[in-house]
Amino acid sequence: MQQIGVGICGLGTVGSGAYNLISGNSEEISRKTGRVVKITQVGCRRDHPDCDLATTNVTRDIFDVVKNPEVDVVLELIGGTDVALRLVKEAIANRKHVVTANKALIAIHGEELFKLANDAGVCLKFEAAIAGGIPIVKAIREGLAANEVQFLAGVINGTTNYILTEMETAGNRDFTDVLSEAQELGYAEADPTFDVEGIDAAHKLTILSSIAFGVPLKFDSMYAEGISEITVEDIRYAGELGFRIKHLGITARTNRGIELRVHPTLIKKTEMLAQVDGVMNAVLVGSDAAGQTMYYGVGAGAGPTASSVVADVIDVLRSGETDQIPNLGFVAEAIQAIPVLDITNIESAYYLRLKVIDVPGVMAKISTILSEHTISIESLIQKDTGQGEVPIVIVTNRVLERSVNDAIRELEGLKQVEGPLARIRVETFS
Amino acid sequence: MQQIGVGICGLGTVGSGAYNLISGNSEEISRKTGRVVKITQVGCRRDHPDCDLATTNVTRDIFDVVKNPEVDVVLELIGGTDVALRLVKEAIANRKHVVTANKALIAIHGEELFKLANDAGVCLKFEAAIAGGIPIVKAIREGLAANEVQFLAGVINGTTNYILTEMETAGNRDFTDVLSEAQELGYAEADPTFDVEGIDAAHKLTILSSIAFGVPLKFDSMYAEGISEITVEDIRYAGELGFRIKHLGITARTNRGIELRVHPTLIKKTEMLAQVDGVMNAVLVGSDAAGQTMYYGVGAGAGPTASSVVADVIDVLRSGETDQIPNLGFVAEAIQAIPVLDITNIESAYYLRLKVIDVPGVMAKISTILSEHTISIESLIQKDTGQGEVPIVIVTNRVLERSVNDAIRELEGLKQVEGPLARIRVETFS
Repeated sequence: MQQIGVGICGLGTVGSGAYNLISGNSEEISRKTGRVVKITQVGCRRDHPDCDLATTNVTRDIFDVVKNPEVDVVLELIGGTDVALRLVKEAIANRKHVVTANKALIAIHGEELFKLANDAGVCLKFEAAIAGGIPIVKAIREGLAANEVQFLAGVINGTTNYILTEMETAGNRDFTDVLSEAQELGYAEADPTFDVEGIDAAHKLTILSSIAFGVPLKFDSMYAEGISEITVEDIRYAGELGFRIKHLGITARTNRGIELRVHPTLIKKTEMLAQVDGVMNAVLVGSDAAGQTMYYGVGAGAGPTASSVVADVIDVLRSGETDQIPNLGFVAEAIQAIPVLDITNIESAYYLRLKVIDVPGVMAKISTILSEHTISIESLIQKDTGQGEVPIVIVTNRVLERSVNDAIRELEGLKQVEGPLARIRVETFS
Repeated sequence: MQQIGVGICGLGTVGSGAYNLISGNSEEISRKTGRVVKITQVGCRRDHPDCDLATTNVTRDIFDVVKNPEVDVVLELIGGTDVALRLVKEAIANRKHVVTANKALIAIHGEELFKLANDAGVCLKFEAAIAGGIPIVKAIREGLAANEVQFLAGVINGTTNYILTEMETAGNRDFTDVLSEAQELGYAEADPTFDVEGIDAAHKLTILSSIAFGVPLKFDSMYAEGISEITVEDIRYAGELGFRIKHLGITARTNRGIELRVHPTLIKKTEMLAQVDGVMNAVLVGSDAAGQTMYYGVGAGAGPTASSVVADVIDVLRSGETDQIPNLGFVAEAIQAIPVLDITNIESAYYLRLKVIDVPGVMAKISTILSEHTISIESLIQKDTGQGEVPIVIVTNRVLERSVNDAIRELEGLKQVEGPLARIRVETFS
């Protein structure tokens, strides 16, 4: 059987997973491809305890791998955007196919790299960059290729979804408390900023938006809001109103522009996305012919991410030089630079939570301000705590975010309103 | 731009959907492929009210289409296994690529047709045969290609899922009542046998099992049980015990053989598959590296099915002569004829419902019979209706089906037990 040589750069969680998957499932992979996939070199700073490297050609210089004539496909699994960028460029220059799990690299440098790869006639694949083991890139670029995609909404960061799920189900545990536990369990990094502030999700959504709509990679135009401001109180009120709070990446094609945003979102408990708990991921795609389809699975970890990395290797092996699937799903000349809407220009419903001093007439004042901004109240909770300070929770109709911001400023100016309002976007998909 | 000619055979629901999708999204499809997909001929017995055929070459003889030199890809959308078989064979003989939505044709004649297509060097694609707009064939054959698939369970028939959902949510409506309504709404055929008795699901599961495990298409070895025996009473008891009843297709690779079965199944309300309501479909795949992934969407209808048909056309156009994805996901020489387990040899948990005459000591007799067959009771409901006849509902541990059948025979022989027992399999996936 013909053999294909794979060079692995980076032997952390994903690299070790890919190493073990290629080794462990070599027979199954040959059954599916009629070829032998062989790891011809591994480049890593140190060995990984889960990998038996006894008979493997190991180098401490990852750049050896991209020069090795026995390597046909380079797996870039080192992460980061500095060395990884140089590594991938050199691999392409040496006419190696490249498979990467690096969302930041693709979101920021994708277009430059795709051009280099296309000019060199090699594949550059990145299924593993988004949602771990879920073949979402393939679903959008190929499975739904006949559709005009309308929107896409996803739970695409396991850390934030784990934290929100725990805050909801484990009783009175606030964000900081659950975050510490997630760090102990290995579900959150020591520096959790990338995950909890939505940067990781933003990288993934940047890529998803491009392959859904055929627009350039626009990470710089992304609106990203994290979950550190979400309180147990908000989760409880949302629950009373029939909602769950999920940290979603949302991108949509509207006739005013592309929406591109990551933020906590109230969604009805009956939505399929509301069932996605813990570290699971899911992406809901709305498209004109297929309607709504959803793709669900484990969004991170050695096995799931390796599953997507090695699926890309198999794709390369099956198509190789004849690969005709454009990197972003659309042929380069068809990419349209549709402007990304500023977040103040999007339309959404809103959850607002205010604390008011219990003075008769304050509800009338609130209603008047809202109605002056053409905002109507869809649901309302008002609870007399008997302590003078009354929490009021409002869910509005769909309005322009700018109008809500203006109304909030006025509401916060009322002398009966204590401290800043909480505001969370509310979306309906089904 | 280079043009590819598509010939549509059959202009019913799916054919008209494909016609309108190719026409309506021609620009979007060109953006994704760099080619023009043009319908060069339509073969149909009569025009379809939803299609404007004014400028289209229409023939009343579908065999004209497979002879037409302007047709590169034939869409077989006539259904059935007689004329369709001849049509596809003639298309292949004329070196046309073929895309079909015909699950029966593939489940029964797939291997013969794949061999003909491979010998002729043309593609034979069938994404639309399973689960409408959900790209499940692509997900398994390509997206999860690095995995050894362990099991697959799916809601793959919209009609039965609609009926069960309605029986559960619409109160006291029995099977016959809801079926009539489904027929009026167009969710069930005038002759509903194929759907409600599980034949349609069995065709789909036959194909899914082959692409999951690399085994031959074994429709003849399928166990299929429909939903006509499911009562509102069972749905209610299942609910009390924390379950919903879903009509599932299940296939698994065990070390004793392949399981291949379609039947009503109790699954925990918290399972993702339990959230799949109405005419929606979903397939849960368990695999060694990716873990559990699920694919959800609309399982039938003009738009969703056409989405998959046209995605296959785009795949053909992108790969064409160089297509290296084996039809069943595994290279022909690697297909292994692993035996299919007889249904009495599978292992499952069981829901049993008996009516007993309220005689002290009957529970002891039931327990003794079960325990003699090494069956233990996981949950039990016993309700005194005050009318002498007491319903007893039992959920067992996982046992060999043969043991349960033996126990049931003995239970039905007890003079305190009235009429036949109800027995429904119980599965846990997550």
